[in-house]
Amino acid sequence: MKIRGIMAQAADQALRVGEVTLRDVQPDDVLIDILYCGVCHSDLHMARNEWGVSQYPLVPGHEIVGRVVSTGQAVSEYQPGDLVGVGVMVDACGHCHFCQQHEEQYCEAGFTPTYNGQDRYTGEMTRGGYAQNIVVDRRFVVSVPENLDPRGVAPLLCAGVTVWSPLRHFNVKSGDRVGVIGLGGLGHMAVKLASALGAEVTLFTTSPEKGADARRLGASRVVVSRDADQMAACAASLDVILDCVAAPHELDPYLAALKTNGQLVLVGIPDSPHPSPDVTPMVFRRLSISGTSIGSIKETQEMLDFCGRHNITAEIEMIRGAEVETAFARMLKSDVKYRFVIDIKGTSWVAD
Amino acid sequence: MKIRGIMAQAADQALRVGEVTLRDVQPDDVLIDILYCGVCHSDLHMARNEWGVSQYPLVPGHEIVGRVVSTGQAVSEYQPGDLVGVGVMVDACGHCHFCQQHEEQYCEAGFTPTYNGQDRYTGEMTRGGYAQNIVVDRRFVVSVPENLDPRGVAPLLCAGVTVWSPLRHFNVKSGDRVGVIGLGGLGHMAVKLASALGAEVTLFTTSPEKGADARRLGASRVVVSRDADQMAACAASLDVILDCVAAPHELDPYLAALKTNGQLVLVGIPDSPHPSPDVTPMVFRRLSISGTSIGSIKETQEMLDFCGRHNITAEIEMIRGAEVETAFARMLKSDVKYRFVIDIKGTSWVAD
Repeated sequence: MKIRGIMAQAADQALRVGEVTLRDVQPDDVLIDILYCGVCHSDLHMARNEWGVSQYPLVPGHEIVGRVVSTGQAVSEYQPGDLVGVGVMVDACGHCHFCQQHEEQYCEAGFTPTYNGQDRYTGEMTRGGYAQNIVVDRRFVVSVPENLDPRGVAPLLCAGVTVWSPLRHFNVKSGDRVGVIGLGGLGHMAVKLASALGAEVTLFTTSPEKGADARRLGASRVVVSRDADQMAACAASLDVILDCVAAPHELDPYLAALKTNGQLVLVGIPDSPHPSPDVTPMVFRRLSISGTSIGSIKETQEMLDFCGRHNITAEIEMIRGAEVETAFARMLKSDVKYRFVIDIKGTSWVAD
Repeated sequence: MKIRGIMAQAADQALRVGEVTLRDVQPDDVLIDILYCGVCHSDLHMARNEWGVSQYPLVPGHEIVGRVVSTGQAVSEYQPGDLVGVGVMVDACGHCHFCQQHEEQYCEAGFTPTYNGQDRYTGEMTRGGYAQNIVVDRRFVVSVPENLDPRGVAPLLCAGVTVWSPLRHFNVKSGDRVGVIGLGGLGHMAVKLASALGAEVTLFTTSPEKGADARRLGASRVVVSRDADQMAACAASLDVILDCVAAPHELDPYLAALKTNGQLVLVGIPDSPHPSPDVTPMVFRRLSISGTSIGSIKETQEMLDFCGRHNITAEIEMIRGAEVETAFARMLKSDVKYRFVIDIKGTSWVAD
């Protein structure tokens, strides 16, 4: 099946419309008509081959919301017309310890990324959500609550679950005190989700002007991280901190903000290492620094159901396909509140 | 009460015998006749004021085994003649969250160290176990199983519980795969205790000649950490690694040796930071780096009871009080298998 997508033909070329071939619908597959696709910073890294693994042509996009067009004969859980989502993964081995316990994001054989991964059926490269359609195994499709604005749902599929998973894994519950570092695509979802879980949220930011937004989204305290007095005032006050800033930065001030037994959780990978953390408070107050990667399909569904009950979506700016390069340029300046989403139906699919 | 102890009068002077005044026995106190005291590396740091907090005269020693001489009237759990131990703490606030849940080592007001701490009764500096006697609140005294050689028990009070606490906190159980970095005072106890808990133990060492000892103490695998091939062969094989090396060193090779969800636990504080760990595997395999500090009184008693049942003591070299400086010099060359213990009764208490 041939469709149109927005693709990079090389690391140094602007994205443009081109033709994509999707695999034939397999018995377990769902064919989806894409409505919206969020623009994740990793789309930019991959389009430009900044991680050195990109294969071209490359169709980015792993924050996908659409409607089911048709299904393979083994699919009973989805019907044509259903509102569904696809995130960062479209397949995994299915057999390993982690797949068996519904943590495919840690599949020992490696999960299949939604784009620029090797399709386990065809051996071809997978193509992402900056496109008219996608074909995905039913086990990697999630159901989207119809009461939510589907435009704001798209970023939940990556940014949302990436912060939801550590909130759940580290057992954040009502009354806990949670810190969030950085009010961007991930951070703004962390503020919303943690506060909806009943936590008291502190937002750390280098940009004092983000304070009002942070409070509107659910933070009860905003700390300007460059202000030593403000940082000192929140010493030993937090149970868990989600560090949503990928740029290299000092971790020590955040270790100081944790209570004894506190957890600093890194969800971003810096290009060069963070300055080495001081072991002293880690030992004397039994602190942990952990990493965590996206979230499982089960967690994604759980988060979407939670968002449906709490009427939570991402804060977004809508763009059309032709505006992706402009959006990339603005993302590089952190000039987005807080996620771009491509209106796939509003995009011109005439090849450039 | 005046007794004799081995004390530093200044950072640049050799330890020598001098007079120590102990507080009067309070209603909750236990007066102990010291038999043996282990020599911890921190004794050397403190005697030399290497942490900048030493007050002189300073009597080191927090791995104390002795017999009860007398008790205050509120003490019912100990009788004269009982074999008891005292570790790193002799008091804490008793009221905070951590004291209330039997984790005095994380007391929010700070526990009182066995030596060079401020006595909560008298305001004087506390004096340690390189001495004839000590007076300690009953809540900070532990019972020593009579079937164990008390000489080898002494190092359990600090080195032993410092590795026991993380083994328990991180829930090491039979069949788990545990790594131990460094076969010294702490590491050799980690090997013994983890293997007695039923774990399969891998010892990482820079000294291939320690392999035979490590196996004798319970390790099933010995990896020479400078050998890249040996390190590569144990990739993704361990649940928990206890890092018992305080000198700054690369953590990345040990992160690589952890399974997904694995824990690297640091029990030592380096003088300068370890090279900054790579966040990438921490994120993609949900790894944690944690610190942990000594252990609680409850854990100390639990460990001693466990050691009694499993007939575990430390590997020691006995010295007399006059040999402390020689022992310090050998410790600096890592020339000790694996802990020096002072024979207090065999020490001459004539003042120098």
